[in-house]
Amino acid sequence: MCQDCGCSLTTNTKVLEVQKRILEKNDAEAAQNRAKLEKHGILGINLMSSPGAGKTTLLEKTIELLDGICSIGVIEGDLETERDAERIRQKGVAVQQITTGQTCHLDAAMVHSAMHRMPLEEIDLLFVENVGNLVCPAAYDIGTHMNVVLLSVTEGDDKPAKYPLVFLKSDLLLITKTDLAGVLEFDMEKAVSDALTINPRLQVIKLSAKSGDGMDEWITLLRKGLEDRIS
Amino acid sequence: MCQDCGCSLTTNTKVLEVQKRILEKNDAEAAQNRAKLEKHGILGINLMSSPGAGKTTLLEKTIELLDGICSIGVIEGDLETERDAERIRQKGVAVQQITTGQTCHLDAAMVHSAMHRMPLEEIDLLFVENVGNLVCPAAYDIGTHMNVVLLSVTEGDDKPAKYPLVFLKSDLLLITKTDLAGVLEFDMEKAVSDALTINPRLQVIKLSAKSGDGMDEWITLLRKGLEDRIS
Repeated sequence: MCQDCGCSLTTNTKVLEVQKRILEKNDAEAAQNRAKLEKHGILGINLMSSPGAGKTTLLEKTIELLDGICSIGVIEGDLETERDAERIRQKGVAVQQITTGQTCHLDAAMVHSAMHRMPLEEIDLLFVENVGNLVCPAAYDIGTHMNVVLLSVTEGDDKPAKYPLVFLKSDLLLITKTDLAGVLEFDMEKAVSDALTINPRLQVIKLSAKSGDGMDEWITLLRKGLEDRIS
Repeated sequence: MCQDCGCSLTTNTKVLEVQKRILEKNDAEAAQNRAKLEKHGILGINLMSSPGAGKTTLLEKTIELLDGICSIGVIEGDLETERDAERIRQKGVAVQQITTGQTCHLDAAMVHSAMHRMPLEEIDLLFVENVGNLVCPAAYDIGTHMNVVLLSVTEGDDKPAKYPLVFLKSDLLLITKTDLAGVLEFDMEKAVSDALTINPRLQVIKLSAKSGDGMDEWITLLRKGLEDRIS
């Protein structure tokens, strides 16, 4: 109780109950999405990061490198604008934009709805580019098979320790924009070590979509994932 | 209605009602915070940005530049760790860390609680460093007098258009890390123009806490704000 102004700071149990129900509903819808992807033999990948960590640029380069190897679809999540979808559309793949308005993450229902507008029978690999946010997307399973978190060297090596949930919930950490590591004070060893302390099963790839360094390792991982889905 | 799996995608009005009540409660608590700051003659500033846009580094340099001019207090918001508070504590100012766990923003009640642990009678200028997130903090008034959004040139010039709410809710845009603008493809004119389209009353300062460029303009603005509070 605040002596100065008489306020009381209590936990709102009703809010916690509603949040729990939202997450339970989301988990059920995510399971539906996963079943739908599997029915069509599609590998689904959820890309999460802060704004500007390089998700769309990574997708552009990935689409180029997988040309002729598999058929790709992309669901783009943003608060506003079709800009990312337009960039991906230039690459000649199927794309759907979700604009969330003021909602800070994608959820399974939004992804489900976008999947309905995609030619799933023609797709092998579906990327979902989540809203740029290192916090909220991690709490929502959207029904893909792999969670990937991108951390740009421009963001600082302290981010895994400060934003642990997304690193805990991810299968793969991509450290991006490594071409800029030379001009920044980014302690790669510390960032990776902190991320592995949070999640020891996390795979780590360091890459630059701009210079191409490390992209071969990422592409190999995707091809392995595709093979495992088919077999 | 989905033909494939029978799901229904309806808006949950109960969720919307609860969200509305949360925001109304927060607004009332924010007003209390603002009254408390004013009672003590304190100028309160809310710093918002993506993770890694340079909020803590800006604060470190600002504290150095305002040494002997005014007394500063800082409330640090992070999901986890006391790292930012420790960095600020090294500068010899009063600091309180809020760790939010999985909560993606500060709210007025959290800030209120932290204010209780601060020597308000000794402080002229209170900075609140919000959780690194370009989306959610914008929806919560925390009871300060000025909202400042930082956008780093490393994040890309498309961010104002893609994350409009935080630019709409801010009084000042600081474009940070301008020392890196030369090695990045950042269209300054486009970023500023998009931000001003969203919010024509937004002030804009371009700066680099590292090189010092533009810091004089930021310090002048803070001193002006302090003078206006006292008069």
